Amino acid sequence: MPSEFELIDIFLKPFGGGEGVGSDCAAVKVTRGMQLVATTDAVVQGVHFTLPRFSPEDVGWKALAVNLSDLAAAGAKPRWFLCALGVPPRTARLAERIARGMAKLATSSGCKLVGGNVTRSSEWSITITALGEARRPLTRFGARPGDALVVAGKLGDAAAPGAPKAQRRPVPLVDAGMKAGPFASASIDVSDGFVQDLGHLCDASGVGAVVECSALPLGPAARALPHGMELALSGGEDYALIWSVPRARVAALQRVVKCVEVGRITRAPGIQLTELGVPRPLPARRGFDHLR
Amino acid sequence: MPSEFELIDIFLKPFGGGEGVGSDCAAVKVTRGMQLVATTDAVVQGVHFTLPRFSPEDVGWKALAVNLSDLAAAGAKPRWFLCALGVPPRTARLAERIARGMAKLATSSGCKLVGGNVTRSSEWSITITALGEARRPLTRFGARPGDALVVAGKLGDAAAPGAPKAQRRPVPLVDAGMKAGPFASASIDVSDGFVQDLGHLCDASGVGAVVECSALPLGPAARALPHGMELALSGGEDYALIWSVPRARVAALQRVVKCVEVGRITRAPGIQLTELGVPRPLPARRGFDHLR
Repeated sequence: MPSEFELIDIFLKPFGGGEGVGSDCAAVKVTRGMQLVATTDAVVQGVHFTLPRFSPEDVGWKALAVNLSDLAAAGAKPRWFLCALGVPPRTARLAERIARGMAKLATSSGCKLVGGNVTRSSEWSITITALGEARRPLTRFGARPGDALVVAGKLGDAAAPGAPKAQRRPVPLVDAGMKAGPFASASIDVSDGFVQDLGHLCDASGVGAVVECSALPLGPAARALPHGMELALSGGEDYALIWSVPRARVAALQRVVKCVEVGRITRAPGIQLTELGVPRPLPARRGFDHLR
Repeated sequence: MPSEFELIDIFLKPFGGGEGVGSDCAAVKVTRGMQLVATTDAVVQGVHFTLPRFSPEDVGWKALAVNLSDLAAAGAKPRWFLCALGVPPRTARLAERIARGMAKLATSSGCKLVGGNVTRSSEWSITITALGEARRPLTRFGARPGDALVVAGKLGDAAAPGAPKAQRRPVPLVDAGMKAGPFASASIDVSDGFVQDLGHLCDASGVGAVVECSALPLGPAARALPHGMELALSGGEDYALIWSVPRARVAALQRVVKCVEVGRITRAPGIQLTELGVPRPLPARRGFDHLR
């Protein structure tokens, strides 16, 4: 088993040695006029992934992807991240492969590793804090009755059987999120399930929503399954983006981002589903609870 | 056992409900002209603490304290933090008490909780990312031969037997760190052991150091123990600060911060210890390795 400092060197290699990493702190300059946008999210062995269903490279990719998806929801440009590892002693050699998957996404998204931590633990855990910039960050709080409900990305595929690629290597919709910034009134990413995450947006904004299920953008795997709509509604881990958009801006948004209108924001609280106009019951399981 | 969202509410209560927490991301404004300083550090049950040697309040305090100590080493003013919890299902009720200890230090240090995450895990883990601001952050990299070696805080007490208060409730030297900013050429906090952490500073700066052990500021518990000097040299978790300071600035620094001169930076690499001028061997165990 490597020492703590050997493991840090091993981990940093795919990041080009982690220039600037190695002090107690990272020091960075936020662009003038921009707000700093910060988020933290963990992936834990046995909760978010199992080996060998996930390769170590998948784990590293996904740990960063779930954080970049939160930045995408805020419409923020990814800039920097910190990575805290919990390492079970007997599998420390996986660190290099985890780093390789993470570095691939870090490079393609322009997000730079600037700090981290290593400690022993019972199972692998990767806790990332991602930092981005936005002039006017989107939140869950601004949806207004009458706004259109718009989705970018695909739903349901991540929950299809057999740990599909959509679950192992989700692609955070960073560019779409940044482009939607000037158009959306509120935003959230679909991490725990479409109905549950839409519920968070509605609760935070003090509104409700009506969703026409036939308009939901199911992924190809979900579309091929008899219960694909259930997966799209509550499967989770899709990392699609849900936006509320003032009606007058929908067309302009759709000219710059591929996205579909799936419903509208209502004054009455709660979520109502319809399927081809006919009311459809809410799924029994709304989404994922990370403690249950 | 509470649900994920019930636990978040329970945790946020001591922080006054966590105003602004609850979106995917926190958005904050860095003061113009300041650099953003970021650090992440975890405390894990069984590695950094055991219950009931530590109370849950101790755990919460310490998780934040170790991060604020890193900001102190950078001379940064603490502003915001994010907190990712790994929660073992059967002890979720401890969350409120952990939060209470954390909130106490957060309030007294002016550092605001702006985001977090909750997930299941095998043992309690609290991973914090602390964000601060500094005009000119201190690093480990600037020590020059001839600089004085200066220590603020006390050494050795945290490693004294019986999980003493110095170990359970370390006080990060935030004010001292900020005041030292204009004087020090390099800086590090003593988290893993004085000799080991001084070694990091020397390696990063490409220098060595001579330390006169009789000048080291042992805490009262270490002073009373026959092996107190060993604890001061390699016990770790003291959260004292080590600075290299150009000789001409030492007196000015000592007028604004309580600190003691303990040696000097040398061109020759490596650390040499003396005790009343007589060479003293380096401790066999230099400090803490978080994987061993």
